[in-house]
Amino acid sequence: MVQVLDKRVERSKASVLAETYRQLTQSGLSGVSIDEVSRASGVSKTTIYRHWPSRSALLIDACSRLGGAYPPPDTGTVRADLHALLTNLAEQLQTAAWASVYPSIIDAAERDREIAALQCGLHKSFMGPFHAVVERAKDRGEVQRDRPAADVIAAVVGPLFYRRWFSKEPIKAEFVDAIIDAVI
Amino acid sequence: MVQVLDKRVERSKASVLAETYRQLTQSGLSGVSIDEVSRASGVSKTTIYRHWPSRSALLIDACSRLGGAYPPPDTGTVRADLHALLTNLAEQLQTAAWASVYPSIIDAAERDREIAALQCGLHKSFMGPFHAVVERAKDRGEVQRDRPAADVIAAVVGPLFYRRWFSKEPIKAEFVDAIIDAVI
Repeated sequence: MVQVLDKRVERSKASVLAETYRQLTQSGLSGVSIDEVSRASGVSKTTIYRHWPSRSALLIDACSRLGGAYPPPDTGTVRADLHALLTNLAEQLQTAAWASVYPSIIDAAERDREIAALQCGLHKSFMGPFHAVVERAKDRGEVQRDRPAADVIAAVVGPLFYRRWFSKEPIKAEFVDAIIDAVI
Repeated sequence: MVQVLDKRVERSKASVLAETYRQLTQSGLSGVSIDEVSRASGVSKTTIYRHWPSRSALLIDACSRLGGAYPPPDTGTVRADLHALLTNLAEQLQTAAWASVYPSIIDAAERDREIAALQCGLHKSFMGPFHAVVERAKDRGEVQRDRPAADVIAAVVGPLFYRRWFSKEPIKAEFVDAIIDAVI
């Protein structure tokens, strides 16, 4: 009996999360309405608030599905490793749903502490593979030991973010190559 | 009589714009409420909608006050010109009100065509001095003729935007110097 109940709870939590994620990718963070999540998922607001104490808590849970972690490439050279990471990032920025949701998180993080903490966690998780690759390059002597990894990452990732969200230019392969050449 | 009326109209338009700008810098684009603008400025909603046909039109007018245009530096070298521009940008990103409002425009631009057009205009105006400086550097032979100015700009501005809005790291003078060294 307890197991059946547990399964029901898991199912209703999953449908709330799925609907929240759907609204999130469609309308951004500020477009998520608990009333609408309740209506579309068929889970009552009382039940939703039993699982997530606040709207922010639910948003944070749904956002944690954006961009999963993946192992950093290990080709043997920092140039090829960065090429693999940046090519993948360029592809994602131009096609993945999270790329159009992320600005709503960046915006909310300016004014909401809980969302700022969420954004900080997401950013660290997105940049994890870059850190691993640059630290390995330092061990191999390809990047100067005293050069902060965060500086290298800002110099290669920054221009791609700029193109996707600010200048709205396409991110081409030659652009990615030139960025790597300039930094390494 | 016509002149008196004109002055009154100008005064009420100015107070609507000032109040919209205040809400904008405090709560971002989505935090601007026409009801609240009307209440705080003492100008009726009917009058507001007579001057601005839609909420977007008012927002666009208020946003156009963010970041004014300024003449590009002309020190004689691209390195010193970029240094002046990037030092000023770093300062503004870390202190100016528009820096905390801009993500709300970036976010809304993902889903709203009018705001996307506004963002495009703001971006062009922000980047105007950078374009002038890089084109002048090409004329002097400091930057290769066939290198797109937009690529140089993405490589120097992108890392600063990344630090302000994504990694939330401070933007120090040495970081700015290293960015210029890598690109020029």
